[in-house]
Amino acid sequence: MKKSIVISTQQTKFSALAFQEGLKENIKLISALGFDGVELAVRDPQNLNKENIIQLVDEYSLEVPAIGTGQAWGEEGLSFSDPNEIVRKMAVERIIEQIKFASYFSSQVIIGLIRGVVKEGATREETEEWTIAGLRECLEFAKEKNVKLTLEPVNRYESNFINSLEEGIEFIKKINRPDIGLLADTFHMNIEEPSIYGSIIKAKDFITHVHFADSNRWAPGYGHLDFPKIVDTLKEIGYQGYVSAEILPLPNQTAAAEMTIKTLNLLNI
Amino acid sequence: MKKSIVISTQQTKFSALAFQEGLKENIKLISALGFDGVELAVRDPQNLNKENIIQLVDEYSLEVPAIGTGQAWGEEGLSFSDPNEIVRKMAVERIIEQIKFASYFSSQVIIGLIRGVVKEGATREETEEWTIAGLRECLEFAKEKNVKLTLEPVNRYESNFINSLEEGIEFIKKINRPDIGLLADTFHMNIEEPSIYGSIIKAKDFITHVHFADSNRWAPGYGHLDFPKIVDTLKEIGYQGYVSAEILPLPNQTAAAEMTIKTLNLLNI
Repeated sequence: MKKSIVISTQQTKFSALAFQEGLKENIKLISALGFDGVELAVRDPQNLNKENIIQLVDEYSLEVPAIGTGQAWGEEGLSFSDPNEIVRKMAVERIIEQIKFASYFSSQVIIGLIRGVVKEGATREETEEWTIAGLRECLEFAKEKNVKLTLEPVNRYESNFINSLEEGIEFIKKINRPDIGLLADTFHMNIEEPSIYGSIIKAKDFITHVHFADSNRWAPGYGHLDFPKIVDTLKEIGYQGYVSAEILPLPNQTAAAEMTIKTLNLLNI
Repeated sequence: MKKSIVISTQQTKFSALAFQEGLKENIKLISALGFDGVELAVRDPQNLNKENIIQLVDEYSLEVPAIGTGQAWGEEGLSFSDPNEIVRKMAVERIIEQIKFASYFSSQVIIGLIRGVVKEGATREETEEWTIAGLRECLEFAKEKNVKLTLEPVNRYESNFINSLEEGIEFIKKINRPDIGLLADTFHMNIEEPSIYGSIIKAKDFITHVHFADSNRWAPGYGHLDFPKIVDTLKEIGYQGYVSAEILPLPNQTAAAEMTIKTLNLLNI
């Protein structure tokens, strides 16, 4: 397994990110601390200086295992499941842009909050149909670019649409296309999974990316999750991908990054 | 310790209640299952047939350890911390009514979601001041009625105003009046406390009521919380009050109540 941490590429209202400003300084620190990669949270790749970012991660010898996309939901209300067809189309176009950006790094593109929610007035069935149609369109494009998607279940308070790994697996089966895996996030799992370890084992053929955050969404080590046992379980299923810290910048950004690397090193990741 | 479970005394939008309808049937079942008490969730005591409820719990030999008051926030928007003085006044009046009702049973009155939130445009300081003023007024009245209040920290997604036991203790100290204790709810603690056990120990002089729900808010036994260790910790601090299940009615109400009593019995509560 390899070590990564999430940073935002721009200012954001969404606070579950270790770093929000000073991209170069942050990438430098992440590299110096010994992370193998940096996960980028991107609202809209078209607003980014892509060349600058590509050069930066190259300069500091970091990989980019995944691109987070939830800011487009949080800040613009874009989603695959909006009853408004124009909004759904904009969400698909946005993910197409994310796939283009991801192709520079062979990153996975995360399908988390951008799924949206089952809105009042819409049925669960049509919400699923809209989302499946949009994701299939994205997956067609991703195939050309050799990029994969990864579906992130999130806890009940953030969405009513795919909360547990089991629901994620069922949904991936309904999409019925290759190149979309499952993202296991320990913070969400602590709230949603009957057994964190049992759910990982059941999802062994689907997990393509992992987020670590402790029970309180602080860096691993600040809460009460049993990370040694979580890591043992990931080893048991043969997971060899990235463990990426998506955490609150508390007590401050640097301390959060330092606690993360300390814990991941202790876990021999 | 004694065993209790929450029921709603009327229809509600708030679903974290084991029973929502058929008060008599529910009280009969709760008694038959072997609970010592029933915690009542009440939106407005003035809409209740109080004599009927008093008679029912007496008939089935149940105690009423606590009265839940959050429905007045969820359904009417009443809170101690609203910038609108009239809303704050209505919240105080509502809790005064709850105290009158509680006095029939010597119940504690729960101050949970009725605190409200730190609203946009209001400072945390004024939010605290309004809430402290309202609670002091309620505590004056409660003293006459020989009723106590209990402050329930709730997780970050439900309010931004007192999430952890530590924040609850600090706030109780600011209120600086006797007769208000702390409610430890395992579902909220799983999200907010760095250590569930450590936080219980630190709160030992304050805890006057306990809610049990598993990590997924189902009945204890359906999730991954370590209830044997939680019970050991409660014994360690000498807690002798009620353990009351505030849970989702899943997979259905009866199964949830049965799983609760099974788990509480296994724990020798």
